[in-house]
Amino acid sequence: MSLERIDEWLEQVNNIGKTSAPGLYRLAYTREEQDALDVFRGLCEKEGMTVRDDAAGNLIARREGTADFPAVALGSHLDTVYAGGQYDGTLGVLAGLEVIHRLNQKNLRTTHPVEVIVFRAEESSRFGTATIGSKLMSGKADLSKLAALKDKDGIPFPEAVERAGFSFEKLADARRPQSDIKTFMELHIEQGPVLESKQLPVGIVTGIAAPLRLRVHVKGQASHSGTTSMDMRRDALTGASALILDLEAGARKEKDNHTVATVGSIEASPGAMNVIPGQCRFDVDIRSTDTASRERVYRQFLQTAGLLEQTRGLSVQIETLAEEQPVPLSSQVQNGLKEICSNLNLTPVWMPSGAGHDVMNMAEQWPSGLLFVPSVNGLSHHPDEFTSLAHTVEAVDVLEHAVHIEADAGRSKNHMEVRS
Amino acid sequence: MSLERIDEWLEQVNNIGKTSAPGLYRLAYTREEQDALDVFRGLCEKEGMTVRDDAAGNLIARREGTADFPAVALGSHLDTVYAGGQYDGTLGVLAGLEVIHRLNQKNLRTTHPVEVIVFRAEESSRFGTATIGSKLMSGKADLSKLAALKDKDGIPFPEAVERAGFSFEKLADARRPQSDIKTFMELHIEQGPVLESKQLPVGIVTGIAAPLRLRVHVKGQASHSGTTSMDMRRDALTGASALILDLEAGARKEKDNHTVATVGSIEASPGAMNVIPGQCRFDVDIRSTDTASRERVYRQFLQTAGLLEQTRGLSVQIETLAEEQPVPLSSQVQNGLKEICSNLNLTPVWMPSGAGHDVMNMAEQWPSGLLFVPSVNGLSHHPDEFTSLAHTVEAVDVLEHAVHIEADAGRSKNHMEVRS
Repeated sequence: MSLERIDEWLEQVNNIGKTSAPGLYRLAYTREEQDALDVFRGLCEKEGMTVRDDAAGNLIARREGTADFPAVALGSHLDTVYAGGQYDGTLGVLAGLEVIHRLNQKNLRTTHPVEVIVFRAEESSRFGTATIGSKLMSGKADLSKLAALKDKDGIPFPEAVERAGFSFEKLADARRPQSDIKTFMELHIEQGPVLESKQLPVGIVTGIAAPLRLRVHVKGQASHSGTTSMDMRRDALTGASALILDLEAGARKEKDNHTVATVGSIEASPGAMNVIPGQCRFDVDIRSTDTASRERVYRQFLQTAGLLEQTRGLSVQIETLAEEQPVPLSSQVQNGLKEICSNLNLTPVWMPSGAGHDVMNMAEQWPSGLLFVPSVNGLSHHPDEFTSLAHTVEAVDVLEHAVHIEADAGRSKNHMEVRS
Repeated sequence: MSLERIDEWLEQVNNIGKTSAPGLYRLAYTREEQDALDVFRGLCEKEGMTVRDDAAGNLIARREGTADFPAVALGSHLDTVYAGGQYDGTLGVLAGLEVIHRLNQKNLRTTHPVEVIVFRAEESSRFGTATIGSKLMSGKADLSKLAALKDKDGIPFPEAVERAGFSFEKLADARRPQSDIKTFMELHIEQGPVLESKQLPVGIVTGIAAPLRLRVHVKGQASHSGTTSMDMRRDALTGASALILDLEAGARKEKDNHTVATVGSIEASPGAMNVIPGQCRFDVDIRSTDTASRERVYRQFLQTAGLLEQTRGLSVQIETLAEEQPVPLSSQVQNGLKEICSNLNLTPVWMPSGAGHDVMNMAEQWPSGLLFVPSVNGLSHHPDEFTSLAHTVEAVDVLEHAVHIEADAGRSKNHMEVRS
């Protein structure tokens, strides 16, 4: 039942943002993101929820409780990257709706209100900054930084907000008081291969790894590829290659701490077949939930860069683009989820999240949790992104029970049914 | 005397092709190349030479001999790369003119005619193919390939030839019979650091190294940089880095054979900070005058690629873009130049040329030689390209004596003066 329902909802939402190319295009604060929110608004209203938009355009659908207590909130996002998939964000939003649907079906009342939140602009694809909606809701956003953002067509972020029907001046009003929310929980696709490789349906996330992002400039001497003997070269690309391999080796040593390091882009100049590269630029992304482990990888990288300067006659400049702090998630929420898994005969995987999610902003204000569901081939941000709905339903079961406990559904006449 | 004269000529020729940007722009078969040829035509006519354009637009300036014997030819080119320097090609052409000027000054007759040839389109910058003029003169050009060339504005090569006032249909007429030329000699800047590092003014080139050019495609699996643990990655860029370092090591082993290997350009896809590269393409240029040595470097590269496929779960496709054969230069001409150096108390450096030059085409038809003069910092194809004229004059002295011997200037009444 759940499975068919979620599948039908997925189809309705993912009807928005299609083009002639593969993948979905529901970029932050576009018409398409708005249209997807409106489809979801209709689904929530069918479930009898009250739906409002906050000052940032985050959608807040609410099922009232029997008391005026802080809400138990579920949520994720409906925007996508360019050529995005059908599950990233969307599945978490629909999982929340399914929990509400089940409460309704079972005719359960909860003491605490239950909310499903759709955050705006989770993906950084349009403006280069991620999780904007949840930053605003949790009071973490830097408005002067937001004011300076532009998309690739040169549209400033404030203008995009206005075009979407909101006021940039009033964005700060999206911040919610501490007392509004009791607990926040997000369900999200893993975007990695761990659950699939372990053939387990649910991951309990311990914390969000934060990236240290570096831009590395290696400078040597451009010269003719045919006329410069091997021992007279100051080749920026072979130097960069040595650094890239050393970075990989450094992260491998920190495998047990789930630390990862990646060079995603590289450019060698002048870039001609017959010229030894005089310059090479590459970008480094080192992530861990363990700051000390991340620091060790970074220190080794610096040390190797210093050695290469001497042995290869190069200069290496390292610019820090971002240095974010890891966000631990609530142990209490984690333990609650673990107990539920145990009751449902599910074996959860305890794992860090290498990617950022809206929950990392919410977690700084409210006790928060994150459940992962498997990504086939670890694939995400791709038209072929896929998560089995059978696995999703198992994770929704966990979420449902967590809501029962958190929102205090046990006091109703349906108590026994809830705990079944 | 020579020095001031060559300097003045350099200034006249290099007045052509200037823009507001640094460097010279005298691309193949453009108005600017033509203008430089016309300046040079005027200089040759002042020296009493007969000047003609052949069917390809190569300029042939001739000082007649006392007999109708094959000519002793000197020459190089006046076209440049984008933002080219003032010496590459130009210095060789002016060195030839200086030899003629000295013959005139000393009132010497030669039995053989002496020619100075300016080859068209030596640089590959405009059409992607180098040494077009000398290929046509030596009968090595493939007209069907030339017909298919286009510049970056989409102008077909045949149209550029017609716009320059020549007929594409008649290009083959530029081929000269074997009996036209006795010996060809070129003076060229080294474009490398060897002469400068040895503080010696003249290099006698033993042969032209030929490039083996490869395009390498490494395929792995793109995935999220934060969520894919180090041991589950199939990173195309770290694989490429290992290959690039191994190629460098392989060429270093062949140092004594003057073999060099270079990766000049690289691209990792999709190229985002937070995505492990699923694909990486890079271009390889391996050069040697020793085909067996070049082959050893290539074989090791293939072997390492095969190993990486297994150890890193990658696929490596290697496409051969060009595989040219090294061109040995005439030992007789080399030995003649060596003897002259010895008489002039100059210590020449015996060296291969890693770059292609017009002489490599001429050498397949006629006994040919190549003299190198030092490039400051080994720099060429750059606005800062520089060669000291004091060094150039020493090399011109060698060239002058070689012409005396080859063109048989000894029979005139000035015999003793010549040998002085």
